[in-house]
Amino acid sequence: MWNDLAPVGRYESSGGYRRFAYTAAELECRAWFRAEAQRRDLTVETDGNGNLWAWWGDRTAGDAIVTGSHLDSVPDGGAFDGPLGVVSAFAAIDAMRAAGDVPRRPIGVAAFAEEEGGRFGIACLGSRLLTGAIDPATAAALTDAEGNRLDESMAEAGLDPAGLGMDRVRLSQIAAYIELHIEQGRAQIDMDAPVALGTAIWPHGRWRMEFRGRADHAGTTRLEDRADPMLTYANTVLAARKKARLAGAVATVGRVFCTPNGTNAIPSRVTGWLDARSESQEALDQVVAEVETATRQRAERDGTEVTISRESFSAEVAFDESLRDRLAGVLGPVPLLATGAGHDAGILASAVPTAMLFVRNPTGISHSPAESAEIPDCLSGVEALTEVLRELAC
Amino acid sequence: MWNDLAPVGRYESSGGYRRFAYTAAELECRAWFRAEAQRRDLTVETDGNGNLWAWWGDRTAGDAIVTGSHLDSVPDGGAFDGPLGVVSAFAAIDAMRAAGDVPRRPIGVAAFAEEEGGRFGIACLGSRLLTGAIDPATAAALTDAEGNRLDESMAEAGLDPAGLGMDRVRLSQIAAYIELHIEQGRAQIDMDAPVALGTAIWPHGRWRMEFRGRADHAGTTRLEDRADPMLTYANTVLAARKKARLAGAVATVGRVFCTPNGTNAIPSRVTGWLDARSESQEALDQVVAEVETATRQRAERDGTEVTISRESFSAEVAFDESLRDRLAGVLGPVPLLATGAGHDAGILASAVPTAMLFVRNPTGISHSPAESAEIPDCLSGVEALTEVLRELAC
Repeated sequence: MWNDLAPVGRYESSGGYRRFAYTAAELECRAWFRAEAQRRDLTVETDGNGNLWAWWGDRTAGDAIVTGSHLDSVPDGGAFDGPLGVVSAFAAIDAMRAAGDVPRRPIGVAAFAEEEGGRFGIACLGSRLLTGAIDPATAAALTDAEGNRLDESMAEAGLDPAGLGMDRVRLSQIAAYIELHIEQGRAQIDMDAPVALGTAIWPHGRWRMEFRGRADHAGTTRLEDRADPMLTYANTVLAARKKARLAGAVATVGRVFCTPNGTNAIPSRVTGWLDARSESQEALDQVVAEVETATRQRAERDGTEVTISRESFSAEVAFDESLRDRLAGVLGPVPLLATGAGHDAGILASAVPTAMLFVRNPTGISHSPAESAEIPDCLSGVEALTEVLRELAC
Repeated sequence: MWNDLAPVGRYESSGGYRRFAYTAAELECRAWFRAEAQRRDLTVETDGNGNLWAWWGDRTAGDAIVTGSHLDSVPDGGAFDGPLGVVSAFAAIDAMRAAGDVPRRPIGVAAFAEEEGGRFGIACLGSRLLTGAIDPATAAALTDAEGNRLDESMAEAGLDPAGLGMDRVRLSQIAAYIELHIEQGRAQIDMDAPVALGTAIWPHGRWRMEFRGRADHAGTTRLEDRADPMLTYANTVLAARKKARLAGAVATVGRVFCTPNGTNAIPSRVTGWLDARSESQEALDQVVAEVETATRQRAERDGTEVTISRESFSAEVAFDESLRDRLAGVLGPVPLLATGAGHDAGILASAVPTAMLFVRNPTGISHSPAESAEIPDCLSGVEALTEVLRELAC
């Protein structure tokens, strides 16, 4: 099962994956999902928001237990971020069937669309649409770096974008969502724990920062006559790091575009994206406000203009406590973990009781081809997920 | 003539031009050149390096006077940078013929290939190849942002890349090269001079700076565990500006690429280009050395690695003094001007006596859609060029 998926969307040059929503590589991942579901006689459906579902039992009976994750990737991402949760879900069903388990409730495997926001810029887009956290018209008009719209890209992939939007019926049929995910930091290494139970997701957001100046010749324009937005951008990158460090938060500028992007032309525009996260809402707000202040001060000096707009935001999510306690009771002594990474589980938590399982990452590296997981740890993850599904559904 | 060329390669969204060597827009500019030459019964040829030539008289007679410039543009460049010199050359021939001038020597109009380095990264590529300033094998293997090689791109455009390299015979047939160009700064505004005579080109170069770190998750990787090359890049952008300011030089980082360029991924690599120019070689060397030192210090702090390599370099060029004095004698009291911009004339100066005429730029802005020139100033430029050609060739 894992071997079939491994080569899809993998780039030889980097060893990383580029599985962007509704691109050829991601459509191949979807075909893989359907094949795995059919092999197990699960009913497959794609909902109006592009999310994939495979059902053991009749979804319309309601009270379903859903598990899964996502199949898309960041640019040059690792093999486990997302797919581990989907593969483990199918493997857990295999384990239950091998043990002769007979669920009393439908069990669903979900793969949510555009979790990384790697193509259209908004993370957890599929689960946001499902739960009504984003307006369908806004989502439909989102564009990728080449200017392709989401609705057009869905239509090209054979999906009807008219189905975009909150799906109350579907949500009402789900009793709980459990997401298994590779850990994306080093906490479980320090804890010596192959599996951990999620408690919360830090509040986090993305801000689009547009720096506008005046294109001009790099050789003949005196420094004092320039309005160079690259300077304001560079200052903001360094300010973000500094303010985050002082506040015990994290801040990253990992994406930038420059116009016209010529070696001998002062840019007319630089666009950068700020990703910031913190344990508390208050600290996060403070970091972003301080970065904005530093940026405006510098822009005044540079003669540039800056627009900072929040592209997405997720408030702190505390997963359902009674569900978590019940899973802890089944799994025995597993450590509890809060994470700085966003997940579909964090979005779904607003609509259904939600829990997360994390599998140890021996390097702590994620969103990189160097991301890894050890087979015994993955098997421990499947075992834990199997026990959880058995507890909740049988 | 100007109206035919104006729409070619112009982008509606920016109003700027994208005429990159051997792309569709630039090939259309070449077709325009051929049509204008044929309309005047000039003999057109493309040399082995992709440079266009139109001859009034027989080139092989030798002792030729050549004028011209280039037709390619920076990304979103202005309408005048390059084309003004070519259009003025044809217009000067028209003026000479209207006045009944009969040249004693061949007069050539040249349009040099890839002057801006906008596609393959090396400025004045056509004139460098012609004069042997760059090895033909090195040039053939240059790639654009999509990985297309120069030799393949030439072949696609119907040119034989086997002809690349120094052309001694052609150079030996040229007695002088006069380039007319829009001014790219504000000097002629201050001087109140529609036309100026070039004296020198500042030494200048381009350095490719590669910053390598470790891709990782923007939400879950502690700041102290990161190796984020965007920080080192940002620090270098600010250091370049500061060191240039202190030395009275100019330095610009106007081009950047980030990998993987995802909002929630710490970059694995950031590549930026430094353009630096100064009145003296010594001051330029000092600025670049200081930027490099600042970068290495910061890289150590960031846990990143940096490679800085010089991609192109042009030593100071002083144009031929006796030619300049002769032109000054014809033109009367025109101001003299040294420039920070590179030109094909600066490259050709190593092989033939060379001079430059500048036409006033009422905003001082260049390498931007906002670049402009006033019609009376353009006509003054044609008039000056006509007098110069008459003096030298008749």
